[in-house]
Amino acid sequence: MSLLPDPHRLHAGASPRGTLSLVGAGPGAADLLTRRALDRIARADLVLHDRLIDPEVLALIPPAARRIDVGKAVGANAWPQARIDALIVAEALAGARVVRLKSGDPSIFGRAAEEIAAAQAAGIPVDIVPGITAASAAAASLLQPLTERGRFDRLVLATATDAAGGLTARLTASIVPGTQLVLYMAMQHLAEIEQALLAHGLPADIPITLVARCGTAQEARLATPLAGLARAARHAGLRNPAVIFVPVPKAGAALWPQPPARQEMHA
Amino acid sequence: MSLLPDPHRLHAGASPRGTLSLVGAGPGAADLLTRRALDRIARADLVLHDRLIDPEVLALIPPAARRIDVGKAVGANAWPQARIDALIVAEALAGARVVRLKSGDPSIFGRAAEEIAAAQAAGIPVDIVPGITAASAAAASLLQPLTERGRFDRLVLATATDAAGGLTARLTASIVPGTQLVLYMAMQHLAEIEQALLAHGLPADIPITLVARCGTAQEARLATPLAGLARAARHAGLRNPAVIFVPVPKAGAALWPQPPARQEMHA
Repeated sequence: MSLLPDPHRLHAGASPRGTLSLVGAGPGAADLLTRRALDRIARADLVLHDRLIDPEVLALIPPAARRIDVGKAVGANAWPQARIDALIVAEALAGARVVRLKSGDPSIFGRAAEEIAAAQAAGIPVDIVPGITAASAAAASLLQPLTERGRFDRLVLATATDAAGGLTARLTASIVPGTQLVLYMAMQHLAEIEQALLAHGLPADIPITLVARCGTAQEARLATPLAGLARAARHAGLRNPAVIFVPVPKAGAALWPQPPARQEMHA
Repeated sequence: MSLLPDPHRLHAGASPRGTLSLVGAGPGAADLLTRRALDRIARADLVLHDRLIDPEVLALIPPAARRIDVGKAVGANAWPQARIDALIVAEALAGARVVRLKSGDPSIFGRAAEEIAAAQAAGIPVDIVPGITAASAAAASLLQPLTERGRFDRLVLATATDAAGGLTARLTASIVPGTQLVLYMAMQHLAEIEQALLAHGLPADIPITLVARCGTAQEARLATPLAGLARAARHAGLRNPAVIFVPVPKAGAALWPQPPARQEMHA
């Protein structure tokens, strides 16, 4: 029932046409890439990578492959999405095995949809090689599972901002007792996040954990009560890429407002 | 600022004591393990694995290592959690490098907390090697990212049942417009899930995707409207392990009830 060409055949070189592989680079440590990701990188003719990819991962790119940092830069060297899409299509149509190397997992906050659509519209075979997302890597590093039977039975991964760049109005919408909330790319908005979570009724002493540059030599962590989060992070000098863990256990549910029952939502 | 021993040192054999590594086996394909996971398996003295681990992954275990299937079986051969914990502790204290091989990512619905606590209480060094969770693997296989800028800005991973085994009362609690909901281990409850989602107000024609045994030779998929989900899955013969994608885009939000504003929740 597979809808895709066998990914092992995809790179066998039998096709006259190039390919696009969106490859998850994981959190930064080179040994946290999958073997399939290493294989795609080893066979790449051209690697387009984000700015946040760790040097340890970039070192895996074979010397013969061309590489381009398409991380957002300003001015004449900028790589807006349309330019990336156009390069992928032109190179793959010319026969190149193009690897689009993305931090973490391409499917989670990886903005993969546009590149997939552009390649597919041009008839280029595409595959995604999944990667370890930052939440998984940070949980492993902290030895704190993201879910826990009876305590955290749902995991919510979210960004703090909406497409317009402002704090999303729905930041707190998924927070119910028994939720582990992990915020991505949220370090620029810590003060607003702290305010919004407190205003939502979360206890001031909920233990927040921040992990920056997880899995790299520069990994840094911070544990702080919710109240004081922004100040503590500023003091510690933590910056993106980072994930923020907001654990909302069932046990503390009595302390803060319950979500309305379904009937009330229909009222 | 690392709180843990360097994982590379952890297995260097310098310690007189054994170790516990909780290793993510990913969805099933052997090339979707990380290099770190392969390393832990290659150095293992004892591997305790779940029943759902694919034979392709089990084939990675070196012949010299002992292996035990601790997947739940009934009767005298059963492995209740306490027995697993006790074996891990006894073996590691005797000097063994114990690998606890878990499907997907140990931190996501992997029930890792008890084993970590038992080993830590005995003074045994523990690490987690993250793995590709089923949602990431299925999204890659479907070429459908889990998040999409402007459409799905939050990802919710949840089980359908609570600790008592019944359908969780909070199944629908995290569903707000712009949510990609992925249900794990839910195949036994499809009829109840279908009913609950429809009763919550989701449109009957929301396109549900099921992916079973993702990444293995037995991968099977099903696309069906929400109304009719249970019947379609039964007809297709899909079973666990599987993930169920419930996409709730912002665009369809007008069709179903909005979550209450924060002010109403405090009322």
